[in-house]
Amino acid sequence: MSRLRAAVVGATGFTGMELVRLIVQHPELELAFVSSESKAGQLFQEVAPAFRSLVDLTLQSSAELTEATADVAFLALPHRVSMDKIQAWRRWNTPLVDLSADYRLRDAATYEAWYETTHSDPAGLDAAVYGLPELNRDKIREARLVANPGCYPTASALAALPLLWHALIQDSASIIVDAKSGVSGAGIEPKPITHFANAHDNFVAYGVGVHRHTPEIEQTLAVASDRQQTVQFTPHLLPVDRGILASVYVPAKPGLTQTELDAAFRDSYQTEPFVRLVEAPPTLKQVRGTNYCDIFPTVDTRTGNVMVFAAIDNLVKGAAGQAIQNWNLMAGLDESTGLRQPGFLP
Amino acid sequence: MSRLRAAVVGATGFTGMELVRLIVQHPELELAFVSSESKAGQLFQEVAPAFRSLVDLTLQSSAELTEATADVAFLALPHRVSMDKIQAWRRWNTPLVDLSADYRLRDAATYEAWYETTHSDPAGLDAAVYGLPELNRDKIREARLVANPGCYPTASALAALPLLWHALIQDSASIIVDAKSGVSGAGIEPKPITHFANAHDNFVAYGVGVHRHTPEIEQTLAVASDRQQTVQFTPHLLPVDRGILASVYVPAKPGLTQTELDAAFRDSYQTEPFVRLVEAPPTLKQVRGTNYCDIFPTVDTRTGNVMVFAAIDNLVKGAAGQAIQNWNLMAGLDESTGLRQPGFLP
Amino acid sequence: MSRLRAAVVGATGFTGMELVRLIVQHPELELAFVSSESKAGQLFQEVAPAFRSLVDLTLQSSAELTEATADVAFLALPHRVSMDKIQAWRRWNTPLVDLSADYRLRDAATYEAWYETTHSDPAGLDAAVYGLPELNRDKIREARLVANPGCYPTASALAALPLLWHALIQDSASIIVDAKSGVSGAGIEPKPITHFANAHDNFVAYGVGVHRHTPEIEQTLAVASDRQQTVQFTPHLLPVDRGILASVYVPAKPGLTQTELDAAFRDSYQTEPFVRLVEAPPTLKQVRGTNYCDIFPTVDTRTGNVMVFAAIDNLVKGAAGQAIQNWNLMAGLDESTGLRQPGFLP
Amino acid sequence: MSRLRAAVVGATGFTGMELVRLIVQHPELELAFVSSESKAGQLFQEVAPAFRSLVDLTLQSSAELTEATADVAFLALPHRVSMDKIQAWRRWNTPLVDLSADYRLRDAATYEAWYETTHSDPAGLDAAVYGLPELNRDKIREARLVANPGCYPTASALAALPLLWHALIQDSASIIVDAKSGVSGAGIEPKPITHFANAHDNFVAYGVGVHRHTPEIEQTLAVASDRQQTVQFTPHLLPVDRGILASVYVPAKPGLTQTELDAAFRDSYQTEPFVRLVEAPPTLKQVRGTNYCDIFPTVDTRTGNVMVFAAIDNLVKGAAGQAIQNWNLMAGLDESTGLRQPGFLP
Repeated sequence: MSRLRAAVVGATGFTGMELVRLIVQHPELELAFVSSESKAGQLFQEVAPAFRSLVDLTLQSSAELTEATADVAFLALPHRVSMDKIQAWRRWNTPLVDLSADYRLRDAATYEAWYETTHSDPAGLDAAVYGLPELNRDKIREARLVANPGCYPTASALAALPLLWHALIQDSASIIVDAKSGVSGAGIEPKPITHFANAHDNFVAYGVGVHRHTPEIEQTLAVASDRQQTVQFTPHLLPVDRGILASVYVPAKPGLTQTELDAAFRDSYQTEPFVRLVEAPPTLKQVRGTNYCDIFPTVDTRTGNVMVFAAIDNLVKGAAGQAIQNWNLMAGLDESTGLRQPGFLP
Repeated sequence: MSRLRAAVVGATGFTGMELVRLIVQHPELELAFVSSESKAGQLFQEVAPAFRSLVDLTLQSSAELTEATADVAFLALPHRVSMDKIQAWRRWNTPLVDLSADYRLRDAATYEAWYETTHSDPAGLDAAVYGLPELNRDKIREARLVANPGCYPTASALAALPLLWHALIQDSASIIVDAKSGVSGAGIEPKPITHFANAHDNFVAYGVGVHRHTPEIEQTLAVASDRQQTVQFTPHLLPVDRGILASVYVPAKPGLTQTELDAAFRDSYQTEPFVRLVEAPPTLKQVRGTNYCDIFPTVDTRTGNVMVFAAIDNLVKGAAGQAIQNWNLMAGLDESTGLRQPGFLP
Repeated sequence: MSRLRAAVVGATGFTGMELVRLIVQHPELELAFVSSESKAGQLFQEVAPAFRSLVDLTLQSSAELTEATADVAFLALPHRVSMDKIQAWRRWNTPLVDLSADYRLRDAATYEAWYETTHSDPAGLDAAVYGLPELNRDKIREARLVANPGCYPTASALAALPLLWHALIQDSASIIVDAKSGVSGAGIEPKPITHFANAHDNFVAYGVGVHRHTPEIEQTLAVASDRQQTVQFTPHLLPVDRGILASVYVPAKPGLTQTELDAAFRDSYQTEPFVRLVEAPPTLKQVRGTNYCDIFPTVDTRTGNVMVFAAIDNLVKGAAGQAIQNWNLMAGLDESTGLRQPGFLP
Repeated sequence: MSRLRAAVVGATGFTGMELVRLIVQHPELELAFVSSESKAGQLFQEVAPAFRSLVDLTLQSSAELTEATADVAFLALPHRVSMDKIQAWRRWNTPLVDLSADYRLRDAATYEAWYETTHSDPAGLDAAVYGLPELNRDKIREARLVANPGCYPTASALAALPLLWHALIQDSASIIVDAKSGVSGAGIEPKPITHFANAHDNFVAYGVGVHRHTPEIEQTLAVASDRQQTVQFTPHLLPVDRGILASVYVPAKPGLTQTELDAAFRDSYQTEPFVRLVEAPPTLKQVRGTNYCDIFPTVDTRTGNVMVFAAIDNLVKGAAGQAIQNWNLMAGLDESTGLRQPGFLP
């Protein structure tokens, strides 16, 4: 069987390059189209020398993508830009995986409130499926447009979902998510916060109380628990290039034991190909470059709190890897096709 | 006036070297004695080449320290080792500042439970004053033995104290302290977790629910609030050499406003020489190498939680700098003597 | 066809783990045996959590390896330890790839002088082939024992070989190799120099004039030029986990032009699968995690010097990747089988 | 005695902030004026939060500086911008220390060739003194305008000068300077090369054969040796924020011994307050934050090459610290006033 042709729209950002990295290793895909508005006309391998001798494509404008160009299109565009493309392209037969934020929130008003802009394709929101396979696997299989989850929401939701599915926590409490991300999450555009001298040897909280991933996490947890769930989400910037650790705190329901907690997580994830339950707090390094989410749940009987620590690579399970995982499902393939590489140590 | 003579007992660890760094810049101190059991007989500047041409002392054994040797002794020894020294030395007139954990907890039983060892000098606990100037300034002035606070407890307590002093939070809730520290906190002894290949590009929680700084933080908050206070303290290891950020979460008392919160922190700290209230989450870099604790309190009216972010340099305000600050008080000097250097950027 | 069984002897060091990483991605190999003397009996995935759900083997003692256990054995052992194993095992039919230094130098006396130890298997030196495919491809195909080159010698030799093959430099001059390596080159054993606080934010030369890779580089260049070649080799320690950059300086033969230089390098390497000639000084990142050696040669007509910059990943082209490349040749496979993964950015 | 008033023109770049850091610790200086064209009107401590509670000045435009404003002006401006200011200001009585490249080269034509721009103040070149105290101490004492050396030229020249002063090397050879600098050398403006994701975990040569510090190094060495001296200077970018290591290679005159080499360096530097001769290759960390240049010279009798390794902090001895050192000389103070702080470890 010949490989299916993949397009990466927005191929020169961190997420786009990561998609390229995974596609060239995928046994059922061949990279057929890469775009960049600002670098159209340049060789992709000149922009990204790591791909020299591996990718021999010229960057095009996204306007050159047609229904006939590719068998799947991955969009790694800024929010707002993405919806303008998808509004047109979702009439095609080409499956679309959107890595922007534009189709993640079910409710256009919530989108507009948190993103401070209008949504030009509210009808598209109904067509889109939220691409967290551990939550929505069956719907993803049928989808034509998948909204790939945000990086923080992936780690946060995978950490918290079993607590809700198994009703292990106190109803009224906020779920505290203290999350930490590597600098690639801030994008490839040089700016003061991504200057080496600012990011290196440094650490800081940002977006306190107002980060746009907050409603996305709350929406996922509400779906899982059938009620509104308040999340206190605080991201921090780590001096690493990639990786997210989410540390989740919430008062446990009285009497929760470690045995009960472990059983709930095992029940939730034992057949999941990309969730690994681990016996110690996970490190960023053990998931670096991989599509795994490593999770360590624990209850502190002294304080009555349950804590869950979840580690992912923000560019893989938090973006490009999960996008491929979603497409594998859409294409009827084994979900882990092309995604079982180990990371590398050190 | 001639300078007073300072001894650094345990001068070749990170905290000991930091004490040396601050003492050689202190206008009222001269370094008179440095010890190391394993390196006795070597020149200090050979062990620490950064001090070449600045320090011309030979390392001695701590057994060589006498009452006549120094006008103040700073002990940067491991716990247990420290109490064996102090048990003898606290009969001297020499003021002692102990940077170990041995005299921080008021209650020997709590010490023994968390440190899993016996305490050989319970009487010394009564003599010791807990050296957090922002809490105990007057007692420190009168002390002969100061127990210098732990690094995490310094950041955590300074973040949380105004919440208790001004009764801004819900009584029953645990205070969540999600703290992150640089690698120097793990000590100078090479071990797997401090290997560059493990620490670099990595991040991980550790000591979840069992870290020994937990009872120290709880003790400080109990003193401040006159009741037992449960703290859920979780440290994480950052890929930086120095710096601590404590992110504190707790449900606010109903109706708490940002104005009220700011007023409480201003009231608590406006005359403090080393606490700076800042308008944005503090970075590690802005306190790097300094004795400052930068604090940003905020209330999220959407969720009802109050959050406080506090940054210190774990080796300065979290150890050697606070020790000097304490001695300045004990010696009747201006508290900030020798401690007003800016850090350096980048 | 069923896959061939690979043994990794010494699987818990950095090189051993990297071999495992590459073997589990190799289409013709399956991992059949992993050993560690100190960790025998433990699950490999417990020692290396990155391999959880990917490798399900228990670590054994190397003494348990037999001729029947594996179709190829990769030895990632310290020097001296390796020769004791190989002395016995080279009677087997099993192809052996030795990643230690023990069989790299043709001359036992040179080995003994630089490594300050005796060589217990001088006869083995005659049987071994030096595994630099760009130099020795045909001999490697016929070899049963391949001595995998050192990391620095790989980068240094690939940079300098075309200068000698095409006689582009002045005969009498030393070749200056100013090389820089990431910390994984110092091994997984924690020691002061690999402590994060020493390696991070730091940089230093070491082994000046006495590094053991010097005679290996000189030997390779002598083979290529048919005369003794003096190399001034100086390694430095970079605050990165992996990667080597070799900066090579040598007086050019009079009148050498950039055109001539470029032609010589193209002629030398245009059919090489893992050498990429690049138009700008190569970065460590563009080869990170890959088996590529990226090379940039340039002549400074103002000064009359030729300079060559070569970047590799010390653990891949400088160790485990080149070992697989060598075995691919020994097994009659396409040389690049299992080695065409791109690295990842950032 | 009241302190003298210092102006820092261009105070919000890395060099400018470092000047501020040193001035606030200087016993004879008070900071009186800070400027920034783009940030004029803002509080300096808002731009640089590390200086909160230490500096209470508002940024002004450089146009507001008058002869009466300050007793010394330090200019930390881009090249070209600096000469336009100095052309006017050098008529004042105010001593000027220029940290740009504009007055370093004696010859306007050389400046114009390497900097690819015209020099608008060639007369000023005659008035300026090159501010390397180890070379020009007496002239600096008399100067009104000091051209502060570049960072690379400081480390390179201090490493090589004794070789020329004592005629220890072969006349005809190029001096190879393989230099490595931290990212602060690239300036505070965000750009792709200073993006954390590009600089971190990376290393690369740049400006090969064309870096503008080349003629500055050659000029200094020519002054010292009374003949033209060719330097092959190659800078590399290190993933650290500050620090330079220069590794210098040159064929020794026949028969040079280590004893002779050591004697020459001792003779050259034994009375220098900021050059330390060390017994092992110096690390960046041992000079971090300090005005010291640590130097290790060695001869390899096997190869006949002499090598010198010199480490500085590029922002201190390579910029702001040396500027203060120069002003101390101009003001008739002890040269090391305000500059004897140790760096900090780790």
